[in-house]
Amino acid sequence: MHPERFFSPDPNLRLIAKRLYHSAKNIPIFAPHGHVDPALFSDPNARFGNPVDLFIRPDHYVIRTLYSNGIPLQKLGISTKDNSVEYDPRKVWELFCDNFHLFRATPSGVWLTTSLRDVFDIKKKLSKQTAGSTYDILVEKLSSIEFSPRTLFEKFNIELLATTDSAADFLAHHQKIQASNWKRNIIPTFRFDTLVHFLNPGWIEEIKRLAANSNTEISNFHTFIQALERRRDDFRRLGATATDFSAESALTEELSHQQVDAIFQRALKGQVDQQDASRFVAHMLLEMARMSAEDGMAMQFHAGIYRNHNISLYQEFGADIGGDIPLAIEFTRSLIPLLQKFGNHPNFKLILFTLDESTYTRELAPLAGHYPALRLGPPWWFNDSLNGIERYLNQVMESAGLYKTAGFNDDTRGFCSIPARHDLWRRQAANWLAGLLARHVIDEEDAHQMMYELCIGLARRAYNMESKQNGNAE
Amino acid sequence: MHPERFFSPDPNLRLIAKRLYHSAKNIPIFAPHGHVDPALFSDPNARFGNPVDLFIRPDHYVIRTLYSNGIPLQKLGISTKDNSVEYDPRKVWELFCDNFHLFRATPSGVWLTTSLRDVFDIKKKLSKQTAGSTYDILVEKLSSIEFSPRTLFEKFNIELLATTDSAADFLAHHQKIQASNWKRNIIPTFRFDTLVHFLNPGWIEEIKRLAANSNTEISNFHTFIQALERRRDDFRRLGATATDFSAESALTEELSHQQVDAIFQRALKGQVDQQDASRFVAHMLLEMARMSAEDGMAMQFHAGIYRNHNISLYQEFGADIGGDIPLAIEFTRSLIPLLQKFGNHPNFKLILFTLDESTYTRELAPLAGHYPALRLGPPWWFNDSLNGIERYLNQVMESAGLYKTAGFNDDTRGFCSIPARHDLWRRQAANWLAGLLARHVIDEEDAHQMMYELCIGLARRAYNMESKQNGNAE
Amino acid sequence: MHPERFFSPDPNLRLIAKRLYHSAKNIPIFAPHGHVDPALFSDPNARFGNPVDLFIRPDHYVIRTLYSNGIPLQKLGISTKDNSVEYDPRKVWELFCDNFHLFRATPSGVWLTTSLRDVFDIKKKLSKQTAGSTYDILVEKLSSIEFSPRTLFEKFNIELLATTDSAADFLAHHQKIQASNWKRNIIPTFRFDTLVHFLNPGWIEEIKRLAANSNTEISNFHTFIQALERRRDDFRRLGATATDFSAESALTEELSHQQVDAIFQRALKGQVDQQDASRFVAHMLLEMARMSAEDGMAMQFHAGIYRNHNISLYQEFGADIGGDIPLAIEFTRSLIPLLQKFGNHPNFKLILFTLDESTYTRELAPLAGHYPALRLGPPWWFNDSLNGIERYLNQVMESAGLYKTAGFNDDTRGFCSIPARHDLWRRQAANWLAGLLARHVIDEEDAHQMMYELCIGLARRAYNMESKQNGNAE
Repeated sequence: MHPERFFSPDPNLRLIAKRLYHSAKNIPIFAPHGHVDPALFSDPNARFGNPVDLFIRPDHYVIRTLYSNGIPLQKLGISTKDNSVEYDPRKVWELFCDNFHLFRATPSGVWLTTSLRDVFDIKKKLSKQTAGSTYDILVEKLSSIEFSPRTLFEKFNIELLATTDSAADFLAHHQKIQASNWKRNIIPTFRFDTLVHFLNPGWIEEIKRLAANSNTEISNFHTFIQALERRRDDFRRLGATATDFSAESALTEELSHQQVDAIFQRALKGQVDQQDASRFVAHMLLEMARMSAEDGMAMQFHAGIYRNHNISLYQEFGADIGGDIPLAIEFTRSLIPLLQKFGNHPNFKLILFTLDESTYTRELAPLAGHYPALRLGPPWWFNDSLNGIERYLNQVMESAGLYKTAGFNDDTRGFCSIPARHDLWRRQAANWLAGLLARHVIDEEDAHQMMYELCIGLARRAYNMESKQNGNAE
Repeated sequence: MHPERFFSPDPNLRLIAKRLYHSAKNIPIFAPHGHVDPALFSDPNARFGNPVDLFIRPDHYVIRTLYSNGIPLQKLGISTKDNSVEYDPRKVWELFCDNFHLFRATPSGVWLTTSLRDVFDIKKKLSKQTAGSTYDILVEKLSSIEFSPRTLFEKFNIELLATTDSAADFLAHHQKIQASNWKRNIIPTFRFDTLVHFLNPGWIEEIKRLAANSNTEISNFHTFIQALERRRDDFRRLGATATDFSAESALTEELSHQQVDAIFQRALKGQVDQQDASRFVAHMLLEMARMSAEDGMAMQFHAGIYRNHNISLYQEFGADIGGDIPLAIEFTRSLIPLLQKFGNHPNFKLILFTLDESTYTRELAPLAGHYPALRLGPPWWFNDSLNGIERYLNQVMESAGLYKTAGFNDDTRGFCSIPARHDLWRRQAANWLAGLLARHVIDEEDAHQMMYELCIGLARRAYNMESKQNGNAE
Repeated sequence: MHPERFFSPDPNLRLIAKRLYHSAKNIPIFAPHGHVDPALFSDPNARFGNPVDLFIRPDHYVIRTLYSNGIPLQKLGISTKDNSVEYDPRKVWELFCDNFHLFRATPSGVWLTTSLRDVFDIKKKLSKQTAGSTYDILVEKLSSIEFSPRTLFEKFNIELLATTDSAADFLAHHQKIQASNWKRNIIPTFRFDTLVHFLNPGWIEEIKRLAANSNTEISNFHTFIQALERRRDDFRRLGATATDFSAESALTEELSHQQVDAIFQRALKGQVDQQDASRFVAHMLLEMARMSAEDGMAMQFHAGIYRNHNISLYQEFGADIGGDIPLAIEFTRSLIPLLQKFGNHPNFKLILFTLDESTYTRELAPLAGHYPALRLGPPWWFNDSLNGIERYLNQVMESAGLYKTAGFNDDTRGFCSIPARHDLWRRQAANWLAGLLARHVIDEEDAHQMMYELCIGLARRAYNMESKQNGNAE
């Protein structure tokens, strides 16, 4: 990738954007939301595995592009739920390289190319011709200590890395990292999903795991909440500053204790229906808000995604192989019960994410521009892209105001793509500020402070780590 | 603010835009929709008050930015409904200046900075350091005749200023202005809201005020309509050429006289529910259209806003402190009953506004591009901004056609921000036209005529003041 | 029109865009979806008629702009359903030219101006002054063999032209073309609408026509499907490679044979209601998919349009005079039944179109970026414009990937506008690629191959004519 990549084509804007970008180049990466496996760091001798294990199989962005263009999942080494597939990683890599044109102009293409170049010094374009040589280089490097997870963590200049962990999880790897003498800031995030969506397969097992890991007998809603609160304490002791939750809709509704307990009891007996499940989620959003107002953990909420849309593929391969599709979503009415109770609470912080960009100017920016408790998360998933970031900055900032946003997070499973993703954000932030500066909407002082905020200041404050640095200055 | 502010950063586009902008610089301001208090002009000795009264307390754009960043309303001198708050305006001004970074890249920041510079010759950036000196300058200027409302009105080169007034209002200030020998064009606008939304507190008092000011005993729907029609005549005698109405949805529905009368009678007895209220609004939209088709007043309709969203804040402080949040809205089906009856009527004009930008290309531009009676109002409220105007021009014009739009209106409570707001619109209009000219979509003649239309021609015709100037020429 | 029209105003981008555009200038026009009348080509002596017949009366884009600005349809020579109107084409042309400013910055204005210049060598801007002379030139040229449909077809360098034809149609003109010694590739498209929407007036006559032309007695759902399948065979024998269908919503639902047969039987008796009609459409979408999976015809589906919105105009003048208005639409949930059954089918291809741009990033690009069977059609109707194309490319490509789109189609009734429309698409495609190249997102090789794909490669593959050329190379 070219060193001036992604900067505005206009020479004046490019000059300003480069200046702003370079002024921020020593700011460490702050990654408060993502899906990197903590096991990579708990063992000093861990390695990333082969190129396919690193770049293809775990990356549902890559998988979906190949699958949607007619390449069967089995050919990519993806196992079905019932049978683990045998695969030749070199052959999968060749298939991938032979189809690399499918990634033209996509963020996946950009991240892959940037990672290969900046992390592994591979400058050749992936293609049928370069498949073999790039595979060999990667295999060699990935086995060496220079490319171990811990070495790359240090090389990447990461100030903070948050993982995402089930509330039921024992956090063994996080405990091991903290007990080690490798002093890096890797923290868990408290994720509710598997414990709250009780129609998901495996819910009852998760409840049992929660009970065991919280030393709580979960027999009703009260003890369920108690178990969650104990686990929140455990997570906080390991550094967690935020929770996370995802749902199909943003509906919130306060049920009476009697109502919610009755639903929960039915769930324990496996006797709930879709309506019970939806109302329980709506109520739990208020419980999460209450707990956050009490213990100060920032509450993250991602709404508007239909999970496992491709039913036959889900039945064969399981979740997370690319069949999650966004839905139109409504926030203005749906959040009233929650915001009525906690929207003005001084100790509460709710970070909202959306995949429905029509809500940026219509609902989210006006809401965040009014309620003290709200922050808007960065463009997420399908919208974490060159144009997605530009639309976000242009549509959100004027109305919400920069200071009601939460900076960037990479949301990635791919550890090696972290620098590439933050870099793309920073370059687009620099382009946005350059446009404002060139049009005299802001001045130099504004631009530099805003650049700093976009790189790290906003995220530190949103995720309650502002103490590290005072807020509004570089 | 820089004299080349807001123009495109591209040197060629900037040159063209500047040329178009300067060719329009003597065109007077035409402000057919806003919320300036007519009392400012009825008394020749009126003054704007202190800087906080002028720039902060009445401006809900400013208030929401400060409040959403954690500053309590009381600290801004905002009174609760029950207790008028004492405040030290200098202290509020200092607090505001100390937080002025919150307005970076927002339209409020742009308007404030432009107004301070262009009206009050204050070129320093607001900050903790400049709070004291800027306060002193403002206090001094605001007390002098050179900065009185009437003097500024003349200085601003305003051809027309329309206020917004309850249909029940006696219009004492407008009468006084017209009776005076200060010959400026300040006219009222006939607003239905407080008389039609009968679940709002104070509805019955408004009905009594309507009855009194129209000399009509309002005992049923028939006499209610009669009273409104009499008041429309009164408004028109004072120069009004338009009505205004706001609702949550755009639903229209024609009820039988019997149905609507029954609802209205229940309302008089305080026995209506939400469904009655909604159906009454849906029917009243047809009544408004009928009256406009008869008397020729342009009908303005703003839909898709949830009022007083922050319930506890509303209960403590009352309406209009920033808790109004947009909703997704549907026009295509909702307007059928109204458009079926009046959409092709040669004497009817309906000006539609939206806060849901997804309706621009999907519904509003196609509707306005078909029905002779429709015009599209400019980007409004949250979308009256640098990017909001750009999106509007790019999304509406190709499909509706320029000549089905209504020019600009500032919709402001802040009289001193009027030149800044119209100036932003004109600069963005010039940028848009420069882009079309540079890409050879239009030629010089087109560009100049379109610039004139965007500045004043379209608005004059939409608001029935086309007689002042012939339509399609400079 | 200027030879550099529509290219980016930035000099660097313009240079790159021109280079890419010119590299593609010999690529023939591939027009797989449109509404040109095949009768123009079945008779070697056919002519286009007078300028009003060619440019105004059949073009509902032009009609709506004039009508929405207050010009009665009768004055444009449009006949009511009951009475054919007499009109003086010269007077209509003069009225049109006198109002040509209404088309400023609209795609219709662009297409008209380009067609007049490039096809008829008319360089003067249309206006009151030039109405007479342009009319005379057009009348003279339109009567000559040099401007006959067949001559222009050859001059336009058209590789393929698909018309749109009712499934019930006998295709007499297509048969005549194929039987002639004029060897050009003009093919029909199998359109279901008039046979599936059984509440439309004339449905039963269409069923009778279908029965006659398929030699099938249609007495129940089974024979209805049989008749359609026979007609699909007939269409395919005449070269058809695709079907087409339009509906208000995207809802799909599989009914039992018993259910759907009962509805169909009621329809034959004229005893169906709106709910029957909607469920029938929802089921028929699955039938269409099944047939396409079997016979390999690409299935096109346009959803989200409210037909004949202006009821009184429709009653007086009939369909297609501009009263069709888009609706908000939902794809994610609605398409589940269809995609569950056919979304992963290797022989099925569904090309989706939308007028609701909010679905681009939210639903359509994610769906197409996952399901192998899906392709996204180009920006359509109101969105086939300079900005509409730009939004499409910026919002769809990153997430769906270029290779899941279907290239361009002009969807036009106006044969002479075909080169103008494809030219606009190509120039905007070149601008888009230039932006990516200048920001180093893609390289030269990528850009040239993507340009070729956008001009013809994607469309050939989407419409099953890939055999003509191998897919991914120029």
